[in-house]
Amino acid sequence: MGLPSTAALARRHARIRESLDTLSLDALIVTPATNIRYLSNHAGTAGILVITRDAVHLLVDFRYHEAVRALQESPSACPQLRMWEVPASYEEALLGCLAEIGVTTVGFEAAHVTVARYEWWRETIAGRRLDVTLRSTERLVEQARMIKDASEIATLRDAAARLGQVVPVVLAAVRAGATERSIAGVIEAAVREAGYERMAFDTIVASGPHSAMPHYRAGTRRLAAGDLLVLDFGGVLDGYCCDLTRTVAIGPPSREARRVYEAVHDAHAAAVAAVKPGVDASAVDAAARDLLRDRGLGDAFGHGTGHGLGLDVHEEPRIGKPRADIPPVTLAPGMVFTIEPGAYLPGFGGVRIEDDVLVTDTGCELLTTLPRAELIALPGS
Amino acid sequence: MGLPSTAALARRHARIRESLDTLSLDALIVTPATNIRYLSNHAGTAGILVITRDAVHLLVDFRYHEAVRALQESPSACPQLRMWEVPASYEEALLGCLAEIGVTTVGFEAAHVTVARYEWWRETIAGRRLDVTLRSTERLVEQARMIKDASEIATLRDAAARLGQVVPVVLAAVRAGATERSIAGVIEAAVREAGYERMAFDTIVASGPHSAMPHYRAGTRRLAAGDLLVLDFGGVLDGYCCDLTRTVAIGPPSREARRVYEAVHDAHAAAVAAVKPGVDASAVDAAARDLLRDRGLGDAFGHGTGHGLGLDVHEEPRIGKPRADIPPVTLAPGMVFTIEPGAYLPGFGGVRIEDDVLVTDTGCELLTTLPRAELIALPGS
Repeated sequence: MGLPSTAALARRHARIRESLDTLSLDALIVTPATNIRYLSNHAGTAGILVITRDAVHLLVDFRYHEAVRALQESPSACPQLRMWEVPASYEEALLGCLAEIGVTTVGFEAAHVTVARYEWWRETIAGRRLDVTLRSTERLVEQARMIKDASEIATLRDAAARLGQVVPVVLAAVRAGATERSIAGVIEAAVREAGYERMAFDTIVASGPHSAMPHYRAGTRRLAAGDLLVLDFGGVLDGYCCDLTRTVAIGPPSREARRVYEAVHDAHAAAVAAVKPGVDASAVDAAARDLLRDRGLGDAFGHGTGHGLGLDVHEEPRIGKPRADIPPVTLAPGMVFTIEPGAYLPGFGGVRIEDDVLVTDTGCELLTTLPRAELIALPGS
Repeated sequence: MGLPSTAALARRHARIRESLDTLSLDALIVTPATNIRYLSNHAGTAGILVITRDAVHLLVDFRYHEAVRALQESPSACPQLRMWEVPASYEEALLGCLAEIGVTTVGFEAAHVTVARYEWWRETIAGRRLDVTLRSTERLVEQARMIKDASEIATLRDAAARLGQVVPVVLAAVRAGATERSIAGVIEAAVREAGYERMAFDTIVASGPHSAMPHYRAGTRRLAAGDLLVLDFGGVLDGYCCDLTRTVAIGPPSREARRVYEAVHDAHAAAVAAVKPGVDASAVDAAARDLLRDRGLGDAFGHGTGHGLGLDVHEEPRIGKPRADIPPVTLAPGMVFTIEPGAYLPGFGGVRIEDDVLVTDTGCELLTTLPRAELIALPGS
């Protein structure tokens, strides 16, 4: 797949510039690494991007100069890019850039700038009598990122499909006596082997009682017959994340384990069936939640049904209950997110089933397509 | 090693409460996951902690209730802890907590709270006429964390020592023809095998021309005779990070490669020799930087000499050039940081050598003790 083309970046810039017009801003300061990557193709852990009506200013330190020069000689060069070499302080370099390019009304991303940073900017601008007014903005880049373009969809499809190489290797390694951490090691080696550049998040291998903790990671416990085992992992391919959860049984599962599994499976199917353009994201959550409540597992499902996937492993849209403090999201073609209902019974164990979906014109496409209909039993002795 | 004891947490709380007294605050809102863990032993990806003169309020959602209850029944229980169950919005739960416990002058960490979050707090407090005044604070928890206590030092020593199990496995796998990513896979499997819970950061395997990019990660390039190869990785043990870099040659190294290696090695030794209580952190940086400059490699060393290690893989103290916008730090016993000078020559390659050190009463203790004196040549065919 590789990186998005110069033309794809230009379309993203056009979208941000529409927001600049709407808000009467001369420029937007962009600080999160994934937003910078989205707008420039530059991937670094530090940097500041300033997009104006006619340029994209990228401020990077010594570590990245070579990489940016190489990017600019590739078919994925960022259009209208000007690189600013940051010798020491990013904050000083930013104010120098704003003064030199002569922008006066400048937006910044309120969700990504700390109070300490903002106060320093504001006080230094005032102290130096610079003609710059800062205005907070919300979600300008995030809203653009929510609808994936063709290159992003191709990469996300590939990322999800490669999990098909990982899962059989992992299931072959699961047996009573193995530790959670050794299974995590097998997962991570298989993810690398499948060509991902890194893990998308800390791998979860939660066995027995640990499976009742949705955000447990992996410890020294040894798998034992009778366990439910939750495996939750994902890889990053060309910057884009996939995220999968499967739950299996060690040895023959109990009747109760089968019942919980079936309920979560059906909740997952109900949520997938609810995905289509025009519906509120919370309706997808409600489909899973209502089904689990009807099966007597309402209190066992405490988290949201899903989250957006892209350059971040948790991004918009949020697939959860409506919240007064978060604007609702209407699903639209090109959105990619997880569907991951679960049920967690302290002392007994838990089940979660997670797939990644793409909203299409008529419904959704499952990007992850591994078997999930049955509670698979793996060697218990 | 396990988690710090209840008594160790109480000493940390006492230190923060001294700051509350100094600043005339009734409470401090703590939001970063590692600061919350430092003060409570609770490890989660979400949560808010509010420390007052006589209690530690921990706000956590459904995912963590079980884990907090288990923690509180252990020898590492957080003293004076009150758990608040967050049903939906953390922000609503926080304001509810502040109102119920009756604190009026409340600090928050300006470096960790975004402008968007602060504005919501401020406007909601005003709209509901709550008797709460927010005051920004700087580095209260970070300054405490900079000096490691006995349990932290024991864990950091163990974390660094286990790299001795990892390095031989990695070096045995390095040979011409292997891809960077396959070596990264070997590193990550060996790190797991050594008992770490996860990688401390994205593994760097930078070969040939890539070794000239200090923050390259790992790609599909195959190692070839004549390459310099920079391997930079670390693990997390009981929450604490270690970080090691070694540079090796594929096949017999050139005279220039040996010269650069020797210069970086000597810069590393000079920096280590400069570490002792009472000196400014920037003096350690200067020791490495001056030596590289004297060898004609001043322009080839663009990053800082090191960074603090602890619950975060990059924390205070910063070991770099003095900066007008960052307060200087005087080294003191109990500080733990990396020493990692490098030299990067675009088109040729790069060398970095990194170890972790603990400041002692008289100088420093090297926590990572793997060989580094010679540029090791690994199979080139």
